[in-house]
Amino acid sequence: MPHTATVDTVLAHVEAGFDQSVERLQELLRIKSISTDPAFAEDCKAAAQWLVDDLTACGFEVATHLTPGHPIVVAHDRDGTDPHVLFYGHYDVQPVDPLDLWDTDPFVPQVKTIANGTRVITGRGASDDKGQLMTFIEACRAWRHVVGKLPVRVSILLEGEEESGGKNLPAFIEANMQELKADIALVCDTDMWDRQTPCVTTMLRGFVGEEITIFCANRDLHSGTYGGAARNPNQILAEIIASLHDADGRVALEGFYDDVAELPKNVKEQWRGLGFDENAFLAGAGLSLPAGERDRSVLELLWGRPTCEINGIFGGYTGEGFKTVIPARASAKISFRLVSNMDPRNIRDTFRAHVRARIPADCSVTFTDHGGSPALTVPSGGALLNKALAALTREWGKPAVIIGDGGSIPVGGEFKRILGMDTLFIGCAQNDDLIHSPNEKYDLTNFHKGIRSWVRLLDAFVQ
Amino acid sequence: MPHTATVDTVLAHVEAGFDQSVERLQELLRIKSISTDPAFAEDCKAAAQWLVDDLTACGFEVATHLTPGHPIVVAHDRDGTDPHVLFYGHYDVQPVDPLDLWDTDPFVPQVKTIANGTRVITGRGASDDKGQLMTFIEACRAWRHVVGKLPVRVSILLEGEEESGGKNLPAFIEANMQELKADIALVCDTDMWDRQTPCVTTMLRGFVGEEITIFCANRDLHSGTYGGAARNPNQILAEIIASLHDADGRVALEGFYDDVAELPKNVKEQWRGLGFDENAFLAGAGLSLPAGERDRSVLELLWGRPTCEINGIFGGYTGEGFKTVIPARASAKISFRLVSNMDPRNIRDTFRAHVRARIPADCSVTFTDHGGSPALTVPSGGALLNKALAALTREWGKPAVIIGDGGSIPVGGEFKRILGMDTLFIGCAQNDDLIHSPNEKYDLTNFHKGIRSWVRLLDAFVQ
Repeated sequence: MPHTATVDTVLAHVEAGFDQSVERLQELLRIKSISTDPAFAEDCKAAAQWLVDDLTACGFEVATHLTPGHPIVVAHDRDGTDPHVLFYGHYDVQPVDPLDLWDTDPFVPQVKTIANGTRVITGRGASDDKGQLMTFIEACRAWRHVVGKLPVRVSILLEGEEESGGKNLPAFIEANMQELKADIALVCDTDMWDRQTPCVTTMLRGFVGEEITIFCANRDLHSGTYGGAARNPNQILAEIIASLHDADGRVALEGFYDDVAELPKNVKEQWRGLGFDENAFLAGAGLSLPAGERDRSVLELLWGRPTCEINGIFGGYTGEGFKTVIPARASAKISFRLVSNMDPRNIRDTFRAHVRARIPADCSVTFTDHGGSPALTVPSGGALLNKALAALTREWGKPAVIIGDGGSIPVGGEFKRILGMDTLFIGCAQNDDLIHSPNEKYDLTNFHKGIRSWVRLLDAFVQ
Repeated sequence: MPHTATVDTVLAHVEAGFDQSVERLQELLRIKSISTDPAFAEDCKAAAQWLVDDLTACGFEVATHLTPGHPIVVAHDRDGTDPHVLFYGHYDVQPVDPLDLWDTDPFVPQVKTIANGTRVITGRGASDDKGQLMTFIEACRAWRHVVGKLPVRVSILLEGEEESGGKNLPAFIEANMQELKADIALVCDTDMWDRQTPCVTTMLRGFVGEEITIFCANRDLHSGTYGGAARNPNQILAEIIASLHDADGRVALEGFYDDVAELPKNVKEQWRGLGFDENAFLAGAGLSLPAGERDRSVLELLWGRPTCEINGIFGGYTGEGFKTVIPARASAKISFRLVSNMDPRNIRDTFRAHVRARIPADCSVTFTDHGGSPALTVPSGGALLNKALAALTREWGKPAVIIGDGGSIPVGGEFKRILGMDTLFIGCAQNDDLIHSPNEKYDLTNFHKGIRSWVRLLDAFVQ
């Protein structure tokens, strides 16, 4: 471990400058970069510009690239040795509704001690992904300040559409293959295994997002005047949604499980070895029984099995009080999580055919594509993966583990498909960070040790 | 017909003053008296006050009565002879969403010629019920102006909660029985049979309004992190709604049809004699096939059969774009139309039991009562009904018919139950008035001939 002395100096600098690191994160969190809502397009631009300025201050060579959606920021520091790493993060955040459930303004970040005694920073994006991406930038800043250069060659790719389908990123990667190709991609957008145990995530589920709208009458109708003789799209929508699962909790689309492989024995064993507490996990969400497919462990349901979820449903009168209306249309936002070799295009086509077959005469349906990506598996045993596990173990004092994740980070699949490059998902978030929910937070310990982890990882990759 | 000469003079006065009648209606339509939304409580008060002022100007003795909801206005003119009639109307209106489908501001009424060449007045409430109730007030104004008094004793009861459950009216009627009891009640809140044919409506469906909210996790969850293991209330809601009808379009609640009588042969024959054009009716809403129960005429489905309609459904993310959320709760607004002897309390209880039986472990449900009323049938052959039919026939030059209505006007049931008084539903609206929809209108011909009809009816009742 030839660089240990240098690493210790860099780590000491991280300690000394941590208050400033928190202040920089607060600045970034104040920007309302909600990518899915066009009303916040200017805020997304502002977040991209803030990162351009900060990366420039760190010594990177930085460029902003406009897209049909939100800007993409690319930065390079070419002074280090091999390997060349590409760090990916996203500066956009989820919407904040329901706003009334936030204890404080989601865009006025607070540093405070929460009920369990943990020091946290609150705000939309605190964990997902502004807090996490800043762990890497702060580590680079410390290396540059102490040593004058980074240990390895580093490129950084920051996008603003991860939470809204990310349709423009693949084309951007394709158009800039040479600039973006590296030896390995690094993504900091996942959780720790538990409060003390670091991990590298090597299995992620794929995704298909769809919005359907069912149209019946040519206008909203009075349910007294027309009720009993006119089609009600709310009812048709409910019947279609009910048809998406069978009584055993399985997804009822034809052929849905055709490309789903059962987990290999060794993966099942590895996951059993994690000692996951199913009851505690469910209890954290106020639940006591697993839903979904029967006779499978919760970890398998979350990491190894596909799903269909109704993320939003709306039709007719939804305000205060009552309105006796048969609406002209009703809509739902529906998503699938994919595993193994499930093809997002196949699943989308099968879903649309399933819906179309259930639209009665006089009615019609439209579909909106909200993105898709295949599941991702990173091969185990690679040298860089092993180096990463060792560096994380050193920082956290506990053996780093290999895990799966039920979420989808499509960029990993795109790096593989377009650049032939594997991705290491190394996240420092806690699973009680309330990402996508009111009162999102990031533990200051995790922000701190996240920065320190990257300081060690950048060094470890050289060895 | 001893009063014909006087009637003609009053009718001539209606002609001469019609422009002012339209202006007064426009004033009333400008008031945003949406009763179901608490944000418009002050507007409801303003509408009540406008009516107090106008009825006072007409010579009525007027009082405003505060309720836990919106005010009730009661006016009397006791100078006429027997019979004593009680006219009922409502000054509240439906919400205006979706606002983007209105051609002009719903609260800036316009007098204009629409595509089919008809002169109309537009705005929320133009037909339901501000325009209709003003036909009666304008007729009284003309009688008072020309003759100095009304032909019969007239009381007027105007409420502001007809579109929002009308929970406070029954208690008010009970507390003021002596003041409100009359020989017959008159309600102008229904349609003409067709563009030229006047009618009295003698069958109305009853109503049960319910809102259900299903709760699962203790917060909104990320559908990647929890999907496959956590209950989704959107899915449970959809499954419950789908269970409310069977494959034949019948309502699938246990015992739902127990108190539903088949229509008597003579009523079926009478309805057949109306020459109702099913295809044209459905085509007017952009439909071609009747939904609901099989093998029944559209008129029977609308007037003689009970229904269950999903008026609103909402859960999870419903904004622009996509959000990968498993929501903590999902809701629906559901209503039933009742016929024959169906008991609203029974139906509500049966519905709630049906829903409760389908709530899985870890989840819960709450119910909100949005009002209920039994179906109503007015006996045929009564002297006042026959006099009304004759007066309408004189005004419109076409024999007035007796019809049913699929809607619910609970006040008729309350008049019967509390005051032992029948109600004649005499409406002058067209069924293309788009009540409860964007671009609601009232034909000026109907406003005009509506006023003239009441002038004749008030006279006819004396004879």
